Amino acid sequence: MSGWVTVAGLGPGAEDLVTPEVSAALAEATDVIGYIPYVARIAPRPGLTLHATDNRVELDRAAHALELAGAGRRVVVVSSGDPGVFAMASALFEALEADPRHAALDIRILPGITAMLAAAARAGAPLGHDFCAINLSDNLKPFALIERRLRHAARGDFAMAFYNPRSSSRPHQFARVLEILREECGSDPLITFARAVSTPDERLVTISLSEAQPGMADMRTVVLLGNSATRRVGRWIYTPRRAEDAP
Amino acid sequence: MSGWVTVAGLGPGAEDLVTPEVSAALAEATDVIGYIPYVARIAPRPGLTLHATDNRVELDRAAHALELAGAGRRVVVVSSGDPGVFAMASALFEALEADPRHAALDIRILPGITAMLAAAARAGAPLGHDFCAINLSDNLKPFALIERRLRHAARGDFAMAFYNPRSSSRPHQFARVLEILREECGSDPLITFARAVSTPDERLVTISLSEAQPGMADMRTVVLLGNSATRRVGRWIYTPRRAEDAP
Repeated sequence: MSGWVTVAGLGPGAEDLVTPEVSAALAEATDVIGYIPYVARIAPRPGLTLHATDNRVELDRAAHALELAGAGRRVVVVSSGDPGVFAMASALFEALEADPRHAALDIRILPGITAMLAAAARAGAPLGHDFCAINLSDNLKPFALIERRLRHAARGDFAMAFYNPRSSSRPHQFARVLEILREECGSDPLITFARAVSTPDERLVTISLSEAQPGMADMRTVVLLGNSATRRVGRWIYTPRRAEDAP
Repeated sequence: MSGWVTVAGLGPGAEDLVTPEVSAALAEATDVIGYIPYVARIAPRPGLTLHATDNRVELDRAAHALELAGAGRRVVVVSSGDPGVFAMASALFEALEADPRHAALDIRILPGITAMLAAAARAGAPLGHDFCAINLSDNLKPFALIERRLRHAARGDFAMAFYNPRSSSRPHQFARVLEILREECGSDPLITFARAVSTPDERLVTISLSEAQPGMADMRTVVLLGNSATRRVGRWIYTPRRAEDAP
């Protein structure tokens, strides 16, 4: 039987947010590869080999998946959320570019519920108008580029979703992000810290940007910033569909 | 039994992209409300009333859902894709804001696979780095705001996803969008026209922005624009995870 590799999104955590398409791919797999906590979500069964690796080896993991598929294995690379949003799909194509031997492989990317959409649904509809998704980690890009994007997103009055807002290796950077946003956002928009949505550890806090503290985020948090029109209705927040141009 | 209202995302079209969470809500519903083609995806069964309405009555539809739930019905408002991305969740909260009688209702928003993520997965990983989602319809916002957001998104070198790129009521506007993007994008980025992803009518075309023609999009198309680093690898396109700041 010929091998294949699929990069699949497991969604934010709850099993009932995994699509049937992803479940079917996992049921056919001989090998599952991914970051330790994501592989831990896959039930072991005879004939399935689980390959759990550390978070900092995305490219090695992708190359390993291509090797196994090239050797005839049926490989699922698991990501949390959606594999195309700050996750394993880009790493797989980087590995493919680096090793053209695998150009003819059967590759599929299976979408999933990404963290910002799960968090937005829990909060209401803060991304109900135009929005940006920005990865705040500076592992693979300079902070100057992050700053430039934050300023343009704010000047365009986009709502924003921030992935990887804060880690122990760069505790001060998110404080700088909040400063930049306060400089740029003329209004005082609502900001939601959504941690571990759809898991037992889920916690949501919505406050105004001026009240936000860096310590409110960690690496399990996605942060949603409203635009100038985002508002509360009861316990919900939402961004209206209707908008005027700014003065 | 007390009523509830759930706004649920059906994903882009294929049944195996509907989450189990959404399927479970539909199985418990007494009423399903939505735009005609989305309600047509729901299998009739005894005890379930289907309410299919035209696309231009989102607020009436949301108010109707609140009324039914307030009267004790179990109501699912169906959206395609994700309900929080240019869909029915914001309309529901607008209706709630307009009618505080329903403030105590049991409301849930259930996320779904939004069109840009399904399209990106089919194309490869064009949204693998920071990106913006922009609704190009000017039904509810002035074109000047759309133009401002396009220019900021381009100056921030964001990848972009465009919803509702073109309709018969505004055939010329998407041509203007392409002009603005060509003015702003110093490179000649890749652009993907993804129509009806995951349905039998699916069709994907990737070309360079300079080759794009307005007629390549219609209302069933989501358009993905790469950033300056987005490239092809074999039949795929992807945006690398690593980025430098622009000069």
